[in-house]
Amino acid sequence: MTITLAIEGSGFTSRTHDEVHYFDHSLFLIDEHGVIQSVLEPDDERYDTEKTQARESGNYRAIAEGSYLLPGFIDLHVHAPQWAQDGTGLDEPLEVWLGKYTFPTESKFADETFAHKVYGDLVGRMLSTGTTTAAYYATVHRKGSFVLAQEANRLGQRALVGKVVMDDPAANPDYYRDASAQSAIEETERFINDVAELNRHSVQGVYPVITPRFIPSCTDEALRGLGELAEKYKTYAYIQTHCSESDWEHGYAYERYGHSDTHMLCEFGLFTSRSILAHSVYPSEEDMRVFAQTGAIAVHCPLSNAFFAGAVAPIRRYLAAGMHVAMGSDISGGYNPDLYGAIRQAVTSSRMLETGVNRDMAAGERGVMDSALTLNNAFYLATAGGGESLGLPIGRLEAGYAWDAQVVDTTFPSARLPIFESNEPASDIFQKILNLAVPENIRTVWVQGREVVSK
Amino acid sequence: MTITLAIEGSGFTSRTHDEVHYFDHSLFLIDEHGVIQSVLEPDDERYDTEKTQARESGNYRAIAEGSYLLPGFIDLHVHAPQWAQDGTGLDEPLEVWLGKYTFPTESKFADETFAHKVYGDLVGRMLSTGTTTAAYYATVHRKGSFVLAQEANRLGQRALVGKVVMDDPAANPDYYRDASAQSAIEETERFINDVAELNRHSVQGVYPVITPRFIPSCTDEALRGLGELAEKYKTYAYIQTHCSESDWEHGYAYERYGHSDTHMLCEFGLFTSRSILAHSVYPSEEDMRVFAQTGAIAVHCPLSNAFFAGAVAPIRRYLAAGMHVAMGSDISGGYNPDLYGAIRQAVTSSRMLETGVNRDMAAGERGVMDSALTLNNAFYLATAGGGESLGLPIGRLEAGYAWDAQVVDTTFPSARLPIFESNEPASDIFQKILNLAVPENIRTVWVQGREVVSK
Ligand SMILES: [Zn+2]
Ligand SMILES: [Zn+2]
Repeated sequence: MTITLAIEGSGFTSRTHDEVHYFDHSLFLIDEHGVIQSVLEPDDERYDTEKTQARESGNYRAIAEGSYLLPGFIDLHVHAPQWAQDGTGLDEPLEVWLGKYTFPTESKFADETFAHKVYGDLVGRMLSTGTTTAAYYATVHRKGSFVLAQEANRLGQRALVGKVVMDDPAANPDYYRDASAQSAIEETERFINDVAELNRHSVQGVYPVITPRFIPSCTDEALRGLGELAEKYKTYAYIQTHCSESDWEHGYAYERYGHSDTHMLCEFGLFTSRSILAHSVYPSEEDMRVFAQTGAIAVHCPLSNAFFAGAVAPIRRYLAAGMHVAMGSDISGGYNPDLYGAIRQAVTSSRMLETGVNRDMAAGERGVMDSALTLNNAFYLATAGGGESLGLPIGRLEAGYAWDAQVVDTTFPSARLPIFESNEPASDIFQKILNLAVPENIRTVWVQGREVVSK
Repeated sequence: MTITLAIEGSGFTSRTHDEVHYFDHSLFLIDEHGVIQSVLEPDDERYDTEKTQARESGNYRAIAEGSYLLPGFIDLHVHAPQWAQDGTGLDEPLEVWLGKYTFPTESKFADETFAHKVYGDLVGRMLSTGTTTAAYYATVHRKGSFVLAQEANRLGQRALVGKVVMDDPAANPDYYRDASAQSAIEETERFINDVAELNRHSVQGVYPVITPRFIPSCTDEALRGLGELAEKYKTYAYIQTHCSESDWEHGYAYERYGHSDTHMLCEFGLFTSRSILAHSVYPSEEDMRVFAQTGAIAVHCPLSNAFFAGAVAPIRRYLAAGMHVAMGSDISGGYNPDLYGAIRQAVTSSRMLETGVNRDMAAGERGVMDSALTLNNAFYLATAGGGESLGLPIGRLEAGYAWDAQVVDTTFPSARLPIFESNEPASDIFQKILNLAVPENIRTVWVQGREVVSK
């Protein structure tokens, strides 16, 4: 192994759900594959030698005082085409939002030029706010979806990309759906192979994702076929879909099958350790056990849940049940492309779950005790929790992990954080960063050792 | 009247609670006092002449295509000294947050040098994110509080500033409270006169505010004395306090007096059309009638309410009851110094009030119907609603109003909004601005015709 990058800096990384580790002038030695080989503390006997050696070979870089390293963020639910309508239509009910905004928008991605423009813009925006890994829904179009994989790969973001399957003629508009179950399956398999081929030359990794939009959009034939692909490509393809997002969706599977959607996804072979299940607000105790046993990932999307889910996902219960939980922006059901926003909203929503919202109910009855997430918990979901869930060595600034990192400058003139005293505790600086950083504060971002943002 | 500034641009201003007006290349003619004398549409017969004349006199300015004018925002609840601890300690319960963070922080503002540093930084930050008017709590220190009035005045922000009164030795720490009720009243009166004197030379206006922290911090003697000052200085002093913030606070007044805090503030002469009542989450129907009859202002602080209030203020009910409602960041109970954040959280919290948070209750029972605020509603609260509440000609881009305005550049390279098509409806652009703008998008801010931010 050759050390090609040595970075000295202070910052923060999650240890557990609850604990954040502050490091002070650690020296990160990163190899030619973009992997952290070792992390030396200033009192380590190799610290000075390694630093000198890196300096001499031109590989040394010091993070300035007042700037802090964080792991890159991991966003496991993004509808990439919806970036074109992001922030709009949210005053409308869900069915209007889908029919008047979302499906017309997504249908435009048959045009690869348009796809290229929107996807490039989105990936750039997410990287520049510190999101180094993302799981994307693209659209039903195989070629348009491949443009997204290419753009993420070119711009240097680690990406999981799915061509969306929505084949049921009774459930989807004629102008925007798969032609048939069979073509949906064939196009998905071709997409998997195209992305696998692209990945062979990728530095940071780009992964195909089998993506039934959600059970109500798909025929059983399509779901079964996708389950077979999931088995066939299980060593590198992921699976993503929406699970128990709303009362309506959760009830839908019971009406169609007499079982929960969690149960039915299992039946179809779509609920495995590689399944990324957006929202997951309503799983029953039994469903939660299935999550924990399979290692499937519940993706918390707190902003869009406030608009469309009708309740707050009880994340502390999920963690206590041993479920994998990660964070998602859910663009554009959630309009904020920046996971700092998701971290903040996760904490805020959890406080509202704990104390309740309706002042006309008694104080003790309107909320759910022990629901509040700390900022440390939410940071974990957006970093280490996402990495563990995916089974990838990302989300922590530790030896053996990819160098996916962001530098937050708390002193940047037009967005200076309110740190007025030199003895401010590290834990307070951490909280100020998570609650107050704006995109201007994020100055440098690396993915797999490659510097992809430098402002 | 002389026209000293003529601005041609497109943008948005509230008409009613529900309606936002889009204007397209309007010409705003602004006089030497910073007041909009007239607004000409392109088909107005005077449009071309006035534009030519302004060009010749060097007073013409065109807002670029892709940039939009909005009224400056009005933030009616800010604890200015808490900027020094902003974003921290929110994982703690309220009493720890006050005792371990807030009171120690506020006590430091006995030091005027420290006050100068923190207050200048905060006012600059707020102006740069479009907040042109703010109502501030400072601290118990008369001189330190005056530093805030001076800084706002110097930097060009319209400010309402209060020296905090908290005199009850049983309720406040010895190191941080008024020496006695009498000294609290005397210091407040002196502060009122000092600010009134400062205001004589202010372009945009700086107003003294009588500021009992909240009923539980004050003796009856202090509250009575402050009520007398409110009557004596009613032509230019405002009043601010916390009202019905939490179950505890709302219950407290009943225990001490057998009446609600709204009722008791009326008794003390502190509940008038000039009263700015932070939070106001729990007023009864009777209290709500008192609000509507007096014209007192309920300040909605959605972010801090999620942490400390224990319920969502039912703002649609307040508006329907004819109450004045404005918006507040509540720094640092709410950490976001930027009213874009408050607008977004107001909508998000209202959706959560409408649909509820606890998935274990039935869908129809967990929320409160007809609670959802639209983005238009929230924009109104942060602009026109604030201006009307204060009885000041601010918060609208209309003739007769002060030229308090911000320019939002949707095309700014590092923070470009996702607008990909040239035929995007104005209403969608408005929603993208409100939901997605970051500080970098705000390029120019004026207060009373004076350009106070130019990036
Ligand atoms: Zn989704
Ligand atoms: Zn307050």
